[in-house]
Amino acid sequence: MSNSYSLMVHGGAGALQHIKHEGNEAKFERSICGILEQGRNILEQGGAALDAVEYCASLLEDDPLYNAGRGSVLNEYGEVEMDAAIMRGLDLSAGAVASIKGIKNPISLARQVLEHSEHVMLAGHGAMKFAEFQHIKVWPDHYFITEARVKQLEEAREAGQMILDHEDSEEPQEKFGTIGVVARDLHGNLAAGTSTGGIVNKRWGRVGDTPVIGAGVFADNTTCAVSATGYGEQFLRTVLAKTIADLIDFQGLNAQEAAAAGIKYLVAKVNGLGGVIVIDRQGQCAAQHSTSGMIYGWIEQSGVAHHQLASPV
Amino acid sequence: MSNSYSLMVHGGAGALQHIKHEGNEAKFERSICGILEQGRNILEQGGAALDAVEYCASLLEDDPLYNAGRGSVLNEYGEVEMDAAIMRGLDLSAGAVASIKGIKNPISLARQVLEHSEHVMLAGHGAMKFAEFQHIKVWPDHYFITEARVKQLEEAREAGQMILDHEDSEEPQEKFGTIGVVARDLHGNLAAGTSTGGIVNKRWGRVGDTPVIGAGVFADNTTCAVSATGYGEQFLRTVLAKTIADLIDFQGLNAQEAAAAGIKYLVAKVNGLGGVIVIDRQGQCAAQHSTSGMIYGWIEQSGVAHHQLASPV
Repeated sequence: MSNSYSLMVHGGAGALQHIKHEGNEAKFERSICGILEQGRNILEQGGAALDAVEYCASLLEDDPLYNAGRGSVLNEYGEVEMDAAIMRGLDLSAGAVASIKGIKNPISLARQVLEHSEHVMLAGHGAMKFAEFQHIKVWPDHYFITEARVKQLEEAREAGQMILDHEDSEEPQEKFGTIGVVARDLHGNLAAGTSTGGIVNKRWGRVGDTPVIGAGVFADNTTCAVSATGYGEQFLRTVLAKTIADLIDFQGLNAQEAAAAGIKYLVAKVNGLGGVIVIDRQGQCAAQHSTSGMIYGWIEQSGVAHHQLASPV
Repeated sequence: MSNSYSLMVHGGAGALQHIKHEGNEAKFERSICGILEQGRNILEQGGAALDAVEYCASLLEDDPLYNAGRGSVLNEYGEVEMDAAIMRGLDLSAGAVASIKGIKNPISLARQVLEHSEHVMLAGHGAMKFAEFQHIKVWPDHYFITEARVKQLEEAREAGQMILDHEDSEEPQEKFGTIGVVARDLHGNLAAGTSTGGIVNKRWGRVGDTPVIGAGVFADNTTCAVSATGYGEQFLRTVLAKTIADLIDFQGLNAQEAAAAGIKYLVAKVNGLGGVIVIDRQGQCAAQHSTSGMIYGWIEQSGVAHHQLASPV
């Protein structure tokens, strides 16, 4: 068991009827399984959990199916504004970027912050200045903006009043919050990463949970690696990723118990909507969500790849 | 005990020889005690913990003795760039602003985010746009910038290389990270707030722990209110404020035990430098730090005001 690797990826949480209606189910399945196998290539050769997390997250960013990198949702000005974070469980080193534009792979910019900055989190123009300093290319808007997202923003703008009228609805406007990856490598190192385009029609400068260590992402070799997706403000207020790690640390829970207790906490405290993927230090994999569905896949302890578009829970 | 109020304020942590050399000890004592008594006025009349936290934090911001609001340290461009956050323990509602300029009281802008925004955290231009929308006045640079801070930046720039040479030194360049307030009101509600000008000579766009819920600040009526100060990146990586709340929640510790265990965790995990103030749901007050000193004061369970410029620990 200690000589096995584990890997989990997610592509957001929410109502999945949307996907089923549009016949996109097979596309998501192929995407998730393909990415898991590419991550396996790194891990089974003894590669680092942090490298597998960065690489799988970059593949999810490159795929316009997900709300991260290419295909990110648009903010109130019709712009793509992205957040990402990555964390290494060995030494709790972390890098995060918020409100960045034109960066093809935000997860890799977050990794550069982890490796080459004395800071953990850089936002806005400061983050862009760091990217320039690291010679990271800025891509044109048309690379990121897809037709589907333009249509979605138009609908959100028109429905603005309606969404407020339904704010107690179980399924809010944003269906697929973010992408995330957690991994355990053959050396027992854990890592976690998240990346997102945020909320459709969000206010300029809004920072969600994705780039916040402890809220949307956390990794510590002594406990677990966590990546969250959902209504970001609720994960910020409950500091959910760290809560799950602390349930393992202070109450001795395993991944499955901690993921379940964490989502119970999210619901009890703030009636929160979202999901988490967790790999604990033994390599046990767990996913849990309070939304009706979640898109995720996993390889547990070097086993076969599985995927799930809606949980049987 | 349940019908008592408690209040704690801090003005940063670090080496306090600096203050003693300059004969500023009495100034800090008068400031801390005066602010505690002003907070007491709110709390003994049945006022809300959140109001006491905002008011005391705004007084600390107005006093150029501290690195927050007026008298904030200068970033690499010689600008004042401030962060603040406030949290209500009753419902875990929170507001945070990062990398803002020209706002006299960042803590009050954070309170406006808590009250009037659908988001928890706003950064940079987005936060400034929100301030404009809330009709909050922008003050000129000369209000914030003090002669002492200009001199300090010049010294930091000159010493840039030297600081790197001494990065293992016990006492880094920034002596006084931030200000913070925690309170428990007569109704048993907890609240916490933090505000800072950040690190001298910091990179543009760097976000520290101060505006991050769970890192520099946390409040939950069922556990405690926490405000942290110190080397921000270390508090971000350990998610320290939430860790302390979770020690109370999941291990049943009281304020004193949780503050001590929290600082022990900070040191064990990342060799961290800083301090915390904590009020638990019973109104017990605790402070703990890994730096040689910390500036703080407290009123425990409606008692007399105390202050401390260096801990006897």
